[in-house]
Amino acid sequence: MAMRRSVVLRRRPQGMPAADDFEIIEDAIPTPAEGEIVTRTIYLSLDPYMRGRLSEAKSYAKPVAIGEVMTGETVGEVVASAHPDYAPGDIVVGPRGWSTHCVSAGTSAWGSLSKLRKGEAKLSYYLGILGMPGVTAYSGMKDIGQPKAGETVVVSAASGAVGSVVGQLAKRAGARAVGIAGGADKCRFVREELGFDDCVDHRAPELRKAIAAACPKGADVYFENVGGAVQAAVFPLLNDFGRMVMCGMVAEYNNTELAPGPNLMAAVRKRLRIEGLIVSDKPERFDEWRRLAAPWVMDGSLRYREDVVDGLDHAAEAFIGLLGGKNFGKLVVRVGAEP
Amino acid sequence: MAMRRSVVLRRRPQGMPAADDFEIIEDAIPTPAEGEIVTRTIYLSLDPYMRGRLSEAKSYAKPVAIGEVMTGETVGEVVASAHPDYAPGDIVVGPRGWSTHCVSAGTSAWGSLSKLRKGEAKLSYYLGILGMPGVTAYSGMKDIGQPKAGETVVVSAASGAVGSVVGQLAKRAGARAVGIAGGADKCRFVREELGFDDCVDHRAPELRKAIAAACPKGADVYFENVGGAVQAAVFPLLNDFGRMVMCGMVAEYNNTELAPGPNLMAAVRKRLRIEGLIVSDKPERFDEWRRLAAPWVMDGSLRYREDVVDGLDHAAEAFIGLLGGKNFGKLVVRVGAEP
Repeated sequence: MAMRRSVVLRRRPQGMPAADDFEIIEDAIPTPAEGEIVTRTIYLSLDPYMRGRLSEAKSYAKPVAIGEVMTGETVGEVVASAHPDYAPGDIVVGPRGWSTHCVSAGTSAWGSLSKLRKGEAKLSYYLGILGMPGVTAYSGMKDIGQPKAGETVVVSAASGAVGSVVGQLAKRAGARAVGIAGGADKCRFVREELGFDDCVDHRAPELRKAIAAACPKGADVYFENVGGAVQAAVFPLLNDFGRMVMCGMVAEYNNTELAPGPNLMAAVRKRLRIEGLIVSDKPERFDEWRRLAAPWVMDGSLRYREDVVDGLDHAAEAFIGLLGGKNFGKLVVRVGAEP
Repeated sequence: MAMRRSVVLRRRPQGMPAADDFEIIEDAIPTPAEGEIVTRTIYLSLDPYMRGRLSEAKSYAKPVAIGEVMTGETVGEVVASAHPDYAPGDIVVGPRGWSTHCVSAGTSAWGSLSKLRKGEAKLSYYLGILGMPGVTAYSGMKDIGQPKAGETVVVSAASGAVGSVVGQLAKRAGARAVGIAGGADKCRFVREELGFDDCVDHRAPELRKAIAAACPKGADVYFENVGGAVQAAVFPLLNDFGRMVMCGMVAEYNNTELAPGPNLMAAVRKRLRIEGLIVSDKPERFDEWRRLAAPWVMDGSLRYREDVVDGLDHAAEAFIGLLGGKNFGKLVVRVGAEP
């Protein structure tokens, strides 16, 4: 009998997760009950926000329980359907799990499954630039960042799936795009491939000075993905009426205690707007963004880089690398063959 | 010859200002040049934001120079005019200075002078509930706080000129209003006179617990006037999609170094909106608010308390008391007789 393989959480990590906090289990491939579908996973997305699911702390999503399959977005092929809207062979994207096969109703507890138009774009792109990270960048810039021509937009984790889109949207708005990324290779990629005006290595010895030098007119938008020392360096550069898009703080996700943040007197003096963003709050942005960005991706004017890892067995290790900044581009796991 | 008396800044205070950081000088009452008017001050407003003018640190307003007259809003009577729009006897409110007489063009560097409709309200009210502090509360609630029925609004410095209006606007919106104020008398005033649902003494031994107990459903809006320990106590109570109106942080104005603020991971997790507000950014709110609130003040449905100090000689001392939380209600100085 063909078996299903899944990654489950074995124990809650303290600080940086270790490979043996996860475990691979096998069980039978499920069959769909009335109203359900079963998908075969082609690609699984690994994203920094998943660190939050490993902790019991209050967050916007319920933590993964010990022994439960890790949650995550996938692109998959419907292999069995007892749901009127889905047929075997359909390709769907949406919240599923770290598993070779997933069963669910067409809508899951944390979002719905979208059928993809075949041939529109590479399937893995729906987990990245045309999926959750791309929509996160789009939504953050549209609803909070609102860059104007001549302004300066700073984004951390600039070579990542969200940051790379943020900077390219800044350029499209006529703003100066300044990235912050880890290491010379990523910085070169951000400048030369993505077309940012500048990119600062967050490992630079004098980070504050380096970022300030890249922002001669200060910062009007800071799209925050990392927190920590980078946040401390950028925060004082914000101009009057500056916007800080609070998307994530991956550098602090493994901290067991919250470090202090910036004194908020600057928010009064400079009339800053500091606002958090979770992409699932505005589901209508997904379709908007796909319609807007698919042509840009197809004509090459919106650049994108993937980091594809082969095999579900390497998912946990790749996720740990992601939290440590080891990947380069949007991290996806190829779990099964493309149809 | 009748002389003008003015309060000038003698030296920049370190920490809490002292009386001898200020000095009273005398010179001749000025005469207006073409396009200028001279006013006799009736009431002078003293406000926490003025602490910022004493420091050289970058802020939204230029610092007062050493030897320069302290800036401040007044209600005054025009005593000489070489300006076509103003005549002797007109009563005007606007940015002027800590002085018995002020000369300026009809519009000054930091705002314009408004002619008041005689008999509409008590003259001193235009420095408080119908003036800058009232408009600050209105603008912060309209543009950022946006309380909805059933929500909880927390405001610090609740017995003050801004806070007292914030809570009353929260009640008008159908929200629960929780004040924080210093001492039993102010708390009683906030509950019994202003009609807040609850008020917590910020000197309470277990401040966090006391505020949490007053907010059984958490806080949806925090209107921040004080910072420091009160901010640290309220911040964790903010609910998902909570709004923090950053109006002032008077408890920290005398600090020579900025204390750390809250870790901003909560802004991501809870999608908080933390936004600064300076009333002069939206001058159109002044007229809006006067039209809206004057009838409420006249019919007694919007409550207001003043703390009137007699004589310009006591302005510096009263201002220092304000920074230390000694006054009770909106602090104004009666500088000259009402007409």
